[in-house]
Amino acid sequence: MSDAARYRYPFMIHRHFDEELAVLKEKLLSMGGLAEQAIGKATEAFLKRDGALAQSVIEEDAAINRTEVDLEESCLSLFARFQPEAKDLRFMAMAFKIIDELERVADQAVNIAERTLDLARSPVFNPPSDIATMSTLAMAMLKDSLDAFVNGNADLASEVCQRDEEVDQLNRVVHDTLLERAGKESAGAKQAVDQLLVARHLERVADHATNIAEDVYFIVRGRTIKHRLGAEA
Amino acid sequence: MSDAARYRYPFMIHRHFDEELAVLKEKLLSMGGLAEQAIGKATEAFLKRDGALAQSVIEEDAAINRTEVDLEESCLSLFARFQPEAKDLRFMAMAFKIIDELERVADQAVNIAERTLDLARSPVFNPPSDIATMSTLAMAMLKDSLDAFVNGNADLASEVCQRDEEVDQLNRVVHDTLLERAGKESAGAKQAVDQLLVARHLERVADHATNIAEDVYFIVRGRTIKHRLGAEA
Repeated sequence: MSDAARYRYPFMIHRHFDEELAVLKEKLLSMGGLAEQAIGKATEAFLKRDGALAQSVIEEDAAINRTEVDLEESCLSLFARFQPEAKDLRFMAMAFKIIDELERVADQAVNIAERTLDLARSPVFNPPSDIATMSTLAMAMLKDSLDAFVNGNADLASEVCQRDEEVDQLNRVVHDTLLERAGKESAGAKQAVDQLLVARHLERVADHATNIAEDVYFIVRGRTIKHRLGAEA
Repeated sequence: MSDAARYRYPFMIHRHFDEELAVLKEKLLSMGGLAEQAIGKATEAFLKRDGALAQSVIEEDAAINRTEVDLEESCLSLFARFQPEAKDLRFMAMAFKIIDELERVADQAVNIAERTLDLARSPVFNPPSDIATMSTLAMAMLKDSLDAFVNGNADLASEVCQRDEEVDQLNRVVHDTLLERAGKESAGAKQAVDQLLVARHLERVADHATNIAEDVYFIVRGRTIKHRLGAEA
């Protein structure tokens, strides 16, 4: 807390800030839960060719977008009222970035749902089983990156970053498998590309989780592990 | 102001903040220039099937990543030392987000360069001419979104947001054209998908420019135009 803030809010301000921070953490976790749920639902819709479920993912995105705007406002209000310094400042800056990452995760769910609507209208073309695995892995990474954030757990954060390579690898396998099939079964080229994009969107979810984990690592350890692992695939 | 002057006139802290803000703006614009250049180079490499140029885009990304880390540190240092309020606070929060968007633009350049390396090793498969148009439009949107930012120009920001639809539309056309060709010329399915991904990366550049423009609009007009235009395609 700055001297200026202390002067303006002399009583109990520290406890007050900590309390508001706890509320912010709760809200962030709940936004994370919504984003994770959206990916789970979108993946289920994709695997079951369920257009109605895909449509509901698209419609529910509006609520996540409202949460994003609310959370950003909460963050800015905390900045303005408490003027956090040092560790608190870094934590707040990180929270601000995480909000953004979560909104982008939710956008990936919408992207998957849109591909699913397309696929549900096209002849059946069974997807590679690795896509379901990618979804499970990406969701677990997202969950763990948020756990690492609320608990300040750098080891867990570092582990999440390492797991990104596994999802990248699966994405490459899915990509190659689908390309080969597209070359052989030209009637299924459209579906193959739609599925290839779904895999890519899941790979992006893992990237967003990795971005969060990198930031957590940075704030806890005070040094970056960013950009060690190269750019996104 | 020199360090000596700063020492003698500590009450001039406001002017000092404005000066540092001007430096931050300059640095942001220069990072924007690097990101734009990277997209331009990656597109050129793609159109000319120039593997060496693509490789240089990938190598130069490290410098942009370092700029990102430096700029984030500058931002946090400004937050900590000046504890900006109200409009300044919003401006700083926006700058913080823009840094992130620019880094993601540079990542798209790397993605395009990677696809280009793949394509340069494959038999010639002429890309749809709309891809070059998409690149030109996306780069102009990026440039204008940063101009809108430094000049606080909400009208220009709103215009950038509207232009996003044009790039989305071109992306859909390119996508459908390439899918049709992949269906007909199965030997070119791999190249068609690589090119389809290049178009998608350019469409993402336009999305990043739109994100910046949305934030600029928000800070200048005090209300959001975010999420009016739906999620990314």
